[in-house]
Amino acid sequence: MASHSLTLFTSPSSFNLFSSHRLNPSPSYFTLHFPRLLKRPHFDIQCSVSIEKEVPETERPFTFLRDSDAAQDKVCEAIEAVEGGPKFKEDVWSRPGGGGGISRVLQDGNVWEKAGVNVSVVYGVMPPEAYRAAKAATAEQKPGPVPFFAAGISSVLHPKNPFAPTLHFNYRYFETDAPKDVPGAPRQWWFGGGTDFTPAYIFEADVKHFHSVQKEACDKFDPSFYPRFKKWCDDYFYIKHRDERRGLGGIFFDDLNDYDQEMLLSFSTECASSVIPAYIPIIEKRKDTPFNEQHKAWQQLRRGRYVEFNLVYDRGTTFGLKTGGRIESILVSLPLSARWEYDHKPEEGTEEWKLLDACINPKEWL
Amino acid sequence: MASHSLTLFTSPSSFNLFSSHRLNPSPSYFTLHFPRLLKRPHFDIQCSVSIEKEVPETERPFTFLRDSDAAQDKVCEAIEAVEGGPKFKEDVWSRPGGGGGISRVLQDGNVWEKAGVNVSVVYGVMPPEAYRAAKAATAEQKPGPVPFFAAGISSVLHPKNPFAPTLHFNYRYFETDAPKDVPGAPRQWWFGGGTDFTPAYIFEADVKHFHSVQKEACDKFDPSFYPRFKKWCDDYFYIKHRDERRGLGGIFFDDLNDYDQEMLLSFSTECASSVIPAYIPIIEKRKDTPFNEQHKAWQQLRRGRYVEFNLVYDRGTTFGLKTGGRIESILVSLPLSARWEYDHKPEEGTEEWKLLDACINPKEWL
Repeated sequence: MASHSLTLFTSPSSFNLFSSHRLNPSPSYFTLHFPRLLKRPHFDIQCSVSIEKEVPETERPFTFLRDSDAAQDKVCEAIEAVEGGPKFKEDVWSRPGGGGGISRVLQDGNVWEKAGVNVSVVYGVMPPEAYRAAKAATAEQKPGPVPFFAAGISSVLHPKNPFAPTLHFNYRYFETDAPKDVPGAPRQWWFGGGTDFTPAYIFEADVKHFHSVQKEACDKFDPSFYPRFKKWCDDYFYIKHRDERRGLGGIFFDDLNDYDQEMLLSFSTECASSVIPAYIPIIEKRKDTPFNEQHKAWQQLRRGRYVEFNLVYDRGTTFGLKTGGRIESILVSLPLSARWEYDHKPEEGTEEWKLLDACINPKEWL
Repeated sequence: MASHSLTLFTSPSSFNLFSSHRLNPSPSYFTLHFPRLLKRPHFDIQCSVSIEKEVPETERPFTFLRDSDAAQDKVCEAIEAVEGGPKFKEDVWSRPGGGGGISRVLQDGNVWEKAGVNVSVVYGVMPPEAYRAAKAATAEQKPGPVPFFAAGISSVLHPKNPFAPTLHFNYRYFETDAPKDVPGAPRQWWFGGGTDFTPAYIFEADVKHFHSVQKEACDKFDPSFYPRFKKWCDDYFYIKHRDERRGLGGIFFDDLNDYDQEMLLSFSTECASSVIPAYIPIIEKRKDTPFNEQHKAWQQLRRGRYVEFNLVYDRGTTFGLKTGGRIESILVSLPLSARWEYDHKPEEGTEEWKLLDACINPKEWL
């Protein structure tokens, strides 16, 4: 598996999603060739479970991501084209514990109140509770501090107009080494991610369009993917204490390692490439829809649910908070503003009630 | 300890804080005499770790809380007096798993955007993860489902004016029985609670007044209490991922059982009685201070931190979410609205910076 993994990460043609980093099989799995890419002092591997602050970098390392076809570039370009003026602010950072990233945020634009698109490659040693946050399925198997490597892209796009939906996508690759105190235990790898859709109001044509683009991307790889990952998405974005989902779903998968690694990388790349055709046409249709204060207040209430899900349940967020990821990059997923009204219940039959009903009882949209 | 506990809860004169419920030593510790107070069907003890929805009650049971001097009544009266018109809405509820409560909320008033004052008495069996949320200190000792009993008052008061501080107080009594699969293990009891203060701007006279009232209440019982519980408060309301506190502290204690039970009940009652003299004079001074949009935006950002603390770290909230407490009562602590700006850093020397600095480096105010 080590050599397969090496092949994956040194294959330039397949690696347009995460970055051009590579693994070196000797002397240690975790001696990454990062010094070539970012400043050396930050990337000496200091295995530590303490949470260390990230270091801002003044220059974007030109080899960190491919220039032309990186998912981050494409999505940011598409958003700036719709914004017509406002541009993303970019922050490049590195983690003393290992790794770094590029965060891009466009705040208070013409169309989006907050749009964040992050890429990161982080590695080091995580405490057991962070391991549980990263990989729920086998939480009990690895008791000690676990060396890990994670690379991914994640994005949350919160528009201003209450009729324009929020979109989230995240695709990530994860490896863990044996725990330090269980040297014989196997190393593991998996892919995770998904694209999901959170409107405050339902336009059935929009939901169908969004889901059909997800299905098309899935069907190129395996006809079982869409139904399986659609259900997984409904199950994952579940706010247990509310007994409702955060939105209208999409696709989600995690701990995925029972397919060929190259195939899963291509699949993740395809999904990331589907974000623009799935989302931008909906935004173009809804961004200028007239709205009133009640529409805005309902959007803000749903944004409150978004905050609840992300801070209480989201695996990426809780993992990031526990491993000392860059806090501003992790919490850029939170909306610019949110609202909590005591015991708010939309009247049955209203548009607000229809959205809530679809969050409580997930539907088949296709 | 069982008979001592019984004495505590059947002593009418000492029990003006939590309610007039009583424990019955036979046949079982958990056969509470609740049916006298609330409707019987909900209070048959169904030991279950599943999360059950609360049931709204149409009438307030007249013996559930003392009419005259309950802390909930006093605080609500004081707030309504300042509001000058708007009144609390009251919801009485019971839990099929055991217990019930009275939630009172005043939303979008003249002075407060959200004021919630709840009392509850809940009992049943909690899953191990909820036990860990309830009692961090001995998290590993009780592996199975744990029968519990909890009674308390909690309140969060979020004013509209950005120069008027948010206040939180919570006083609670907790008992756990032996885990079901470890019948010989000892039962435990403890008191917890505190009163803390979260302004968006510092007025030193206000902070000193607030802390001096806390110190007076503490000093009536033990001169070590204020310094010890002041530090505990600074340590508890710590947003680890931000390396800052949620506000300017006050007092906090938990797992407190190394004093006489009657003494700790009197102490908790005294602290709850100190809320009005500690807080209302500050509100009267600040509620009409002129402010601009920047002041409001800063208040909203600090409210975002409040949300982060409550959803990620607060023991009462995480315990409530995991045991299926009444969700609207638990999350009434969240502000009406909150804000997250990407990478916001107040300029050094500004009033916003001074507040942030005091949240990062807690001060001695007296």
